[in-house]
Amino acid sequence: MAVYTEVADDELAGFVAEYDIGAVVSCKGIAEGVENTNYLLQTDQDSYILTLYEKRVNPDELPFFIGLMEHLAERGLACPTPLHGRDGRALRILCERPAAIVSFLKGMSIRRPTLTHCAALGPAMAEMHLKGADFPLTRRNNLSVAGWRPLFEAIRPRAAEIKDDLADLIAAELDHLETHWPENLPVGLIHADLFPDNVFFLADKVAGGDRMSGLIDFYFACTDILAYDIAICLNAWCFETDGAFNATKARLLLNGYRRVRPLSADELCALPLLARGAAMRFLLTRSYDWLNTPAGALVKRKDPLEYYRKLRFHQGVGGPGEYGLE
Amino acid sequence: MAVYTEVADDELAGFVAEYDIGAVVSCKGIAEGVENTNYLLQTDQDSYILTLYEKRVNPDELPFFIGLMEHLAERGLACPTPLHGRDGRALRILCERPAAIVSFLKGMSIRRPTLTHCAALGPAMAEMHLKGADFPLTRRNNLSVAGWRPLFEAIRPRAAEIKDDLADLIAAELDHLETHWPENLPVGLIHADLFPDNVFFLADKVAGGDRMSGLIDFYFACTDILAYDIAICLNAWCFETDGAFNATKARLLLNGYRRVRPLSADELCALPLLARGAAMRFLLTRSYDWLNTPAGALVKRKDPLEYYRKLRFHQGVGGPGEYGLE
Repeated sequence: MAVYTEVADDELAGFVAEYDIGAVVSCKGIAEGVENTNYLLQTDQDSYILTLYEKRVNPDELPFFIGLMEHLAERGLACPTPLHGRDGRALRILCERPAAIVSFLKGMSIRRPTLTHCAALGPAMAEMHLKGADFPLTRRNNLSVAGWRPLFEAIRPRAAEIKDDLADLIAAELDHLETHWPENLPVGLIHADLFPDNVFFLADKVAGGDRMSGLIDFYFACTDILAYDIAICLNAWCFETDGAFNATKARLLLNGYRRVRPLSADELCALPLLARGAAMRFLLTRSYDWLNTPAGALVKRKDPLEYYRKLRFHQGVGGPGEYGLE
Repeated sequence: MAVYTEVADDELAGFVAEYDIGAVVSCKGIAEGVENTNYLLQTDQDSYILTLYEKRVNPDELPFFIGLMEHLAERGLACPTPLHGRDGRALRILCERPAAIVSFLKGMSIRRPTLTHCAALGPAMAEMHLKGADFPLTRRNNLSVAGWRPLFEAIRPRAAEIKDDLADLIAAELDHLETHWPENLPVGLIHADLFPDNVFFLADKVAGGDRMSGLIDFYFACTDILAYDIAICLNAWCFETDGAFNATKARLLLNGYRRVRPLSADELCALPLLARGAAMRFLLTRSYDWLNTPAGALVKRKDPLEYYRKLRFHQGVGGPGEYGLE
């Protein structure tokens, strides 16, 4: 959520001249995305997002992310599309960093998703899974089950600073997840970070509510169990701010998804376990960030205990019926 | 240069509904201005800047700043214009802070001003001085000569952390400035912070260069000696990055100014002293910020010694001829 790299007027002019997008009218650093520097670039033709990829993004993985956005946009998914320069390239160098210009997506993220928003998320996610199915590149999910134990070892010595019994809970849960993690569920392209921040909506006066305008921030996208993407969203969209799980939101999300991409019985049965895994993933990364980010730093720390509580909730779930399904 | 206050979608929608500017299409926090939170707001009608005034702005002074922008824009100066809501008010409350929407000014600031940019600055500043002359409100300049000694006392105990002889230089210079500060020069509305950051230019393909598109950030504006505004710009625009003073830039700036608002002999003769004062002002505030901003903080610290060197330069100036004037 910060502008790490300042792009000066002269460097920008040279960069933009590589594209067929007209002359620069304005360019403002924006607070969007956690990992990269983003500018809202306006030319006399249109608005665009200019992204400079900072240290935490592996340059070797950029062709995957850029190619994926292009693949999905070509198939009609509402998401940013990378622009190609006159030389055909979508990725080039600006201020010594890899950089790309993508199309500007109208809309805003929703702070408190309602039933309507959850209902709209399901079909959009399913559509993304279907349209990503023939994307030829793959990327391992470093933050799935195999990556959790090393993260746990990194936070273990100081876990009690967050909560007394945090290390015990994680240790027991990791044993369970590693033993029972499903191996035969459909795998494909997942977003892996489809939080409300990354889904844009636009007020629709005709319909009298919000309609989804697109998905953004594909920089955690990877190849993994499709239903795991749903599990991440159950955690990110279906809990109220007081910590209560809202089964109606979950039902709308799941049924919206199933209308576009039906879920098998195996996928449905695995949901509680996948939701525990998804809670573990964010509990671990938030704990790590909590312990390793100075309190006054640029990035706002997110509360790990939110995911401790979500994990505890899913541990008590007996079956997918508790997510509102018949 | 930071988004201090996050405005959520629902709060924004309610706020924008108070204006006749259409429906929100996007709203991005932007890194502009040091003191406030700014959003680039796009509606289905146009682009705007939404500003939330943070702690460092005194709410009692907002009517001055808002009124001034409106006054100048009405008289045709290219600068942001505050929008009035349906209730006629330009200032209201958002997220418990005073907030206003102003018009969006196309253009970008220039990192390294050239002769052309300096030549364009002069007439724009003079035009602002003329158009501000009948602005009915006044605001004391807290950062002029009377405000420097208290700032010096605040940094004095730790001044040596910046430079060995800093306290001695400032002490002697303050005595000189307080004794010789001019009292009979024309006074009026000045910008008081007209750095290259606050002047926008647009590439002009017809003219084959940049043309000025407007002035922004009036939150240091005040009532003070008009030529002091020029002196601030001599420091901010006419030194090269290696510290050398560029008399050609100064001449273009001054002559551009004089074509629109002639300078009296007294004003010209006072320029070297005013430039010393302007250098003192930024040497003091930058030193204060340097000593009181943690190294890892959100705001980038600016080098106080840049203004130490500028002050030393002007101390050696014999008369306005050294600023390129005949």
